[in-house]
Amino acid sequence: MELTRFGVSIDDGLLSQFDRLITNKGYTNRSEAIRDLIRDSLVQTEWESATQETIGTITLVYNSHTHELSDLLTRLQHGHYQAIISTTHIHLDEENCLEVLIVRGRGQDIKKISDQMTSARGVKHGRLSLTTTGKDIL
Amino acid sequence: MELTRFGVSIDDGLLSQFDRLITNKGYTNRSEAIRDLIRDSLVQTEWESATQETIGTITLVYNSHTHELSDLLTRLQHGHYQAIISTTHIHLDEENCLEVLIVRGRGQDIKKISDQMTSARGVKHGRLSLTTTGKDIL
Amino acid sequence: MELTRFGVSIDDGLLSQFDRLITNKGYTNRSEAIRDLIRDSLVQTEWESATQETIGTITLVYNSHTHELSDLLTRLQHGHYQAIISTTHIHLDEENCLEVLIVRGRGQDIKKISDQMTSARGVKHGRLSLTTTGKDIL
Amino acid sequence: MELTRFGVSIDDGLLSQFDRLITNKGYTNRSEAIRDLIRDSLVQTEWESATQETIGTITLVYNSHTHELSDLLTRLQHGHYQAIISTTHIHLDEENCLEVLIVRGRGQDIKKISDQMTSARGVKHGRLSLTTTGKDIL
Repeated sequence: MELTRFGVSIDDGLLSQFDRLITNKGYTNRSEAIRDLIRDSLVQTEWESATQETIGTITLVYNSHTHELSDLLTRLQHGHYQAIISTTHIHLDEENCLEVLIVRGRGQDIKKISDQMTSARGVKHGRLSLTTTGKDIL
Repeated sequence: MELTRFGVSIDDGLLSQFDRLITNKGYTNRSEAIRDLIRDSLVQTEWESATQETIGTITLVYNSHTHELSDLLTRLQHGHYQAIISTTHIHLDEENCLEVLIVRGRGQDIKKISDQMTSARGVKHGRLSLTTTGKDIL
Repeated sequence: MELTRFGVSIDDGLLSQFDRLITNKGYTNRSEAIRDLIRDSLVQTEWESATQETIGTITLVYNSHTHELSDLLTRLQHGHYQAIISTTHIHLDEENCLEVLIVRGRGQDIKKISDQMTSARGVKHGRLSLTTTGKDIL
Repeated sequence: MELTRFGVSIDDGLLSQFDRLITNKGYTNRSEAIRDLIRDSLVQTEWESATQETIGTITLVYNSHTHELSDLLTRLQHGHYQAIISTTHIHLDEENCLEVLIVRGRGQDIKKISDQMTSARGVKHGRLSLTTTGKDIL
């Protein structure tokens, strides 16, 4: 294993916030913290391009008063009804909804479903979180 | 406790089906079976008019292709967002949806919410099932 | 269609409660109300013995402090993991739980699963509600 | 805004994987990609220490055969029943469970609940994903 060194340009304010964060988390140097961020992003991307079975949640926050958005999301979800195990809908207040889809399938397929939902007009926030079905972890 | 006797007119076919059912369930006479049906319907009605706290599920089966039905149901549900704890939506096939609402509140309020949903055009089947929050059962 | 007439013995108090109920519901005579109760019980039993696909909810209220009850219910449910689409669990208060299982399969299989759960020691209330997957309703 | 430059030590293999990833994502230089990772981690940490209301999901994968783990998780969850809106449980196979909790409250409180669950013996994978309740996004 060969070590390389590369430089990162960053503005002062952001760097000092990051230094506080990693100190709180118990890191003793920046390189270690940066390597962990890089590993996490690789792992997440690996899930999202996986051809083996993964399971995940797609979390959406949207305004239910947006015209026909509920209809659109329902239609999109039906197009993938075999991958979507269940959708839990929480009515947060008079307007805002939280929708949590539990999805099972190849990472790359789930990623596509997630992208379709989160890019719909009126969806304020979307987040995909993938994990293992547990079979490969003893 | 005074016993009364009243007569019931019924067509032959229905009666013989009923007789088979109650025999299977272990009843030894029809009066006993009828009294249990009457008690069950009184209990259910009591829940549905209750002013104390109950908890229940509203189950809906509908066709998601019905124009703006998802929008309508979402809007109706938001109007009662404080009573509806969560809604689980299962995409049964390309068209049909199952929606299970978990609802908490006075029986009579939940009954009204249920009636609004189940009477919406395009809802194929609706069912309200009320129960206790468990506090009153030791 | 031949009409038969049979007699029902019932205590006075129960009968007058029933009369009030059916008047409120708009029935004009008792026979009609009794026939509807009989039909409903036949329909429910038909679902519960069905060999075609049905979908249903099993609702359980139980005390989470009952020793190993959560473990037992989880184990029972895993034994039927292919029929149980999802389980939603609501923590009602410090002790009491509501659990709503969405189940898909032959009515008679779902009935058995439901009976196993509701008969577990510590389950205060159990209820099975079956319905159609909607395919047979146009 | 002053720019600073700092160095990161990393092994060759990890760096070339990272370079491929960021090229695919359309980044033109490493600094930009690293800054985005740093910003994301700050945002996530900000949620997790927030005193304003957030909403989130806690996703757990665990083996249901682990002795008394279901009991433990149920007990832990009841201790926070006011913050946990609902828990959806999916029986993945004979052994493995997915549990998705929808949680509402201050970010820092949710973080604590999440840490309790994910550190329980037998939990294979745990993930906290926080978001906004939507009120602050127009």
